[in-house]
Amino acid sequence: MEKDILEPATTNKAVVLTADVLLKQWQGHRGLTRRTIEAFPEDKLFNYSIGGMRPFAQLAIEMLTMGAPGIRGIVTRKWPSYEQVDSEFKNIKTKAQLLEAWDKATEEINELWPQIPAGRFQEIEKVFGQWEGPVYWSLFYFIDNEIHHRGQGYVYLRSLGIEPPPFWDRN
Amino acid sequence: MEKDILEPATTNKAVVLTADVLLKQWQGHRGLTRRTIEAFPEDKLFNYSIGGMRPFAQLAIEMLTMGAPGIRGIVTRKWPSYEQVDSEFKNIKTKAQLLEAWDKATEEINELWPQIPAGRFQEIEKVFGQWEGPVYWSLFYFIDNEIHHRGQGYVYLRSLGIEPPPFWDRN
Repeated sequence: MEKDILEPATTNKAVVLTADVLLKQWQGHRGLTRRTIEAFPEDKLFNYSIGGMRPFAQLAIEMLTMGAPGIRGIVTRKWPSYEQVDSEFKNIKTKAQLLEAWDKATEEINELWPQIPAGRFQEIEKVFGQWEGPVYWSLFYFIDNEIHHRGQGYVYLRSLGIEPPPFWDRN
Repeated sequence: MEKDILEPATTNKAVVLTADVLLKQWQGHRGLTRRTIEAFPEDKLFNYSIGGMRPFAQLAIEMLTMGAPGIRGIVTRKWPSYEQVDSEFKNIKTKAQLLEAWDKATEEINELWPQIPAGRFQEIEKVFGQWEGPVYWSLFYFIDNEIHHRGQGYVYLRSLGIEPPPFWDRN
């Protein structure tokens, strides 16, 4: 089965996504993640978790480290270390600060996105000086990582008796 | 902010993904979900959950309803109701049956995928007779829904003291 996955027997070169569409998809997800942050009571956002995992604020900060800094690196081709980026967000201690950083990232991503040149998405890049692969692959890593951890936030919320925002709503 | 998300001020028409690449991405995710199913003890797969949510087997069956049946509909333009599709999987009662259905879907998706015509990804389609949008949007719904629920399975596993498979491994 693994061989099938890595080397599909047949090819389909149809275009699925352009950069514009991916930005809209991602910002739709980011809007939903913002509403997930908002759904947490302040203390639970920073202190609550299950099974020894990280609290949702820490997961959201991880998303922030990959978001705007990731696009900055893709556009400028300059990469700080992941640890340096992490320190950008180390002072976030309240829900309001987290949401403010989230909104700032939303704007920065929107501003930088149009500057990603055609062909760049297929270039091989070592993002944050560490993870090497095509640019589209890193972008999907950022987005999929957000979806993955947001889903975990939904379990935290449910276990607290709080209804999470609807998954299908991406406005 | 919402306006920015829905109508980006600038445009970027660069191609991010072709169908081939998306298939590889998705099957990479599906391989990881398969390993997540395998990580559950048999009884916990079908009976364990947190906060009134569904057990992981039910979440995985939901993924199956969107997987091969979704691609079948995209290729043939014929859509059974979601309820009809759901009944395809109603006899899954063991981990072995779930994994067998998973592997069957993997093969069916690989076989059908090359038959999706160019341009089809941008067509507007009412999938399962209910959810209307561009085909790429429905496909990402299927994939993102899988990532979302698999992330929830990770919390179930952690709360059971079981280490989930590494998120970054997509082979």
